[in-house]
Amino acid sequence: MSTLLLTGVRPLGGPASDLLVEGGRITRVGEGLAAPEGATVVDGRDQLAVPGLVDAHAHLDKTLWGLPWRPHTAGDGLAALIDNEHRGRAELRRQGVTVAQRATALLGAYVAAGTSHIRSHVDVDTAAGLDSLHGVMEARDAFADRVQVELVAFPQSGLLVRPGTVELLEAAVRAGADLVGGLDPAGFDHRPAEHLDAIFAIAARHGRGLDIHLHDGGELGAFTIDLIIERTRALGLAGMVTISHAFALAEVPGPRLEGLLEGLAGQRISLTTVAPGNRPPLPLARLAAAGVTVGLGCDGIRDLWSPWGDGDLLGRAALLAWRAGARRDQDLAAALELATTGGAGVLGLDGHGLEPGCWADLALVPAATVGEAVVAHPPRSLVLKRGRVVARA
Amino acid sequence: MSTLLLTGVRPLGGPASDLLVEGGRITRVGEGLAAPEGATVVDGRDQLAVPGLVDAHAHLDKTLWGLPWRPHTAGDGLAALIDNEHRGRAELRRQGVTVAQRATALLGAYVAAGTSHIRSHVDVDTAAGLDSLHGVMEARDAFADRVQVELVAFPQSGLLVRPGTVELLEAAVRAGADLVGGLDPAGFDHRPAEHLDAIFAIAARHGRGLDIHLHDGGELGAFTIDLIIERTRALGLAGMVTISHAFALAEVPGPRLEGLLEGLAGQRISLTTVAPGNRPPLPLARLAAAGVTVGLGCDGIRDLWSPWGDGDLLGRAALLAWRAGARRDQDLAAALELATTGGAGVLGLDGHGLEPGCWADLALVPAATVGEAVVAHPPRSLVLKRGRVVARA
Repeated sequence: MSTLLLTGVRPLGGPASDLLVEGGRITRVGEGLAAPEGATVVDGRDQLAVPGLVDAHAHLDKTLWGLPWRPHTAGDGLAALIDNEHRGRAELRRQGVTVAQRATALLGAYVAAGTSHIRSHVDVDTAAGLDSLHGVMEARDAFADRVQVELVAFPQSGLLVRPGTVELLEAAVRAGADLVGGLDPAGFDHRPAEHLDAIFAIAARHGRGLDIHLHDGGELGAFTIDLIIERTRALGLAGMVTISHAFALAEVPGPRLEGLLEGLAGQRISLTTVAPGNRPPLPLARLAAAGVTVGLGCDGIRDLWSPWGDGDLLGRAALLAWRAGARRDQDLAAALELATTGGAGVLGLDGHGLEPGCWADLALVPAATVGEAVVAHPPRSLVLKRGRVVARA
Repeated sequence: MSTLLLTGVRPLGGPASDLLVEGGRITRVGEGLAAPEGATVVDGRDQLAVPGLVDAHAHLDKTLWGLPWRPHTAGDGLAALIDNEHRGRAELRRQGVTVAQRATALLGAYVAAGTSHIRSHVDVDTAAGLDSLHGVMEARDAFADRVQVELVAFPQSGLLVRPGTVELLEAAVRAGADLVGGLDPAGFDHRPAEHLDAIFAIAARHGRGLDIHLHDGGELGAFTIDLIIERTRALGLAGMVTISHAFALAEVPGPRLEGLLEGLAGQRISLTTVAPGNRPPLPLARLAAAGVTVGLGCDGIRDLWSPWGDGDLLGRAALLAWRAGARRDQDLAAALELATTGGAGVLGLDGHGLEPGCWADLALVPAATVGEAVVAHPPRSLVLKRGRVVARA
């Protein structure tokens, strides 16, 4: 790997510094660093540097990115959305549009926006088997030197309501999925304990983590969180479990919330949010105070579920901050932290940041402060992945 | 005025049409129109045309647009925000940065985004008198052929709590303000009936409309709306009154809301919303069903109140739609309608639209449907104001 000297950037809005990058990592940060012989020098003057953006909750296999705009056609409710996706995906297959093509197009957008890591759920069901997994793995491999992607085997069409899916999830893990997923064990699958027992068993058997979609709100969602905490503790999976969405945490009364936070923190269960517009926002300040790690994700991007999204985590941080009424730079910075440090915590990344020793995964943004970077989220002027320039405005 | 033939555009996503523009108005819409001798021909192929965007609630005098990013410094609550603005404005005056300069910079952004009309509130208070009004009028005049601006004399620092302000509002109207403003007659000024009596009296005396800021929520806001309806009826000002924000309508129980909607519709009182992130959204479907006109605004843009905003009404429509959970093209189109037809209704514009006879105020957007135009809100490829090209990508 070549040596690169990035000059005059402002890490997270701090004073201008030079960053020396060797062997893919940041090795020195300081003023007026000399370029080693043979080093490439990149002028980063007046640019704010942010660590590689982390999408902690994506759905690469679902995207229609790069295809013509497709007006949303689904009815209301989860079942209608799932049916609509089955029809839409069948149509795409007839047209010869592959999962790999669509995921590849979206990964290009992610890289241009400065994304260094993505955790993507991938549908596994009895209709398409592991096709989506193989397609996303193909796209992931093609982008291996530009963005790192980990995959969750996701029972989008239900687990126990679709016999054969439990076996498919395990096959997905054998085929290369990094984590085991779940979907509303109570509200959608109707057998919460059995659903969780099945996916925790696969995870424990293969030494993998879990990332469970939980849209169920109020006490039903809180009850499911209790069950997840219980199983995480029983199986010794502390630090390996994520709950995605977890709307219930925004809806239960204060004392109930406190109990849940204690359980989550105790088992180091992390959360992801996609900053939804029409659901109550997660109680982020209380989560932070309780020591619960939260990552940010773009969720599905321009797919059969929703026309929204563009793979820009800075823009998503802006939506999160705007929804919360954030105005001060420190509050805007807190939103960005979910898309950097928070996501890195969810994915368990080592060496994520802008300090010496960290991987040189970063993006330059023409902005004065992190606040401006979030509010305006202008196109990235330069993106480095492990010290290599992978995108430039 | 010159003649212009705009070819192959898709009005609001409809079939490709040519638009003939003569004397500043659209005179013909059809396929394969011949260019009259001497006409300028502009190729609009593959572009979606939207009517001129209308910002029904702006604060041109407050903006820091064009200046370096300024982290937000205010404390919480309305009084802290007002104090913060007084300090910030004094600092700007000391630096020699004028209202006219700042408003001019922002008008440039508005025009580039396809904005044809703006209703701007302008602070009138006992500290700065009519300075802001004169500054904004200067900027407005400089942009007269690119965007039409109407001004509301706005008692930002309070009306009755700041003796002398009532007289200043009347002086503002004499000096050229188009409408009379108000601010939380109950919650901020503490004398709702007297506050409203004072501003309605000025409006009636000068034959002007009113546009009243009403942040007060719940029953206090609903009570104030009752008082506004009562005075509108008593003074025969039907169709000349707007309530801005009107958060209370999102908060009162259904039967109470029904009564308010009947009163608003009966007096043709319009509303504006700025699509706030952290307040409940207005019940837009019920307002539409009741026949109440609603316009969309960007509110203050990158100012001492808030760092948000960029003068793009399409982007603001996206926030409104996203906050409401809109996914279908028709729901996304409804959000855009607030920024076109809705705003035109609030401002009482004639000839706003894309039909023959309308003013040729329009923007071209590289998008397949109105849904895509809202979700992606890409830079406008061309902007016409009264038939003249005023911005181009």
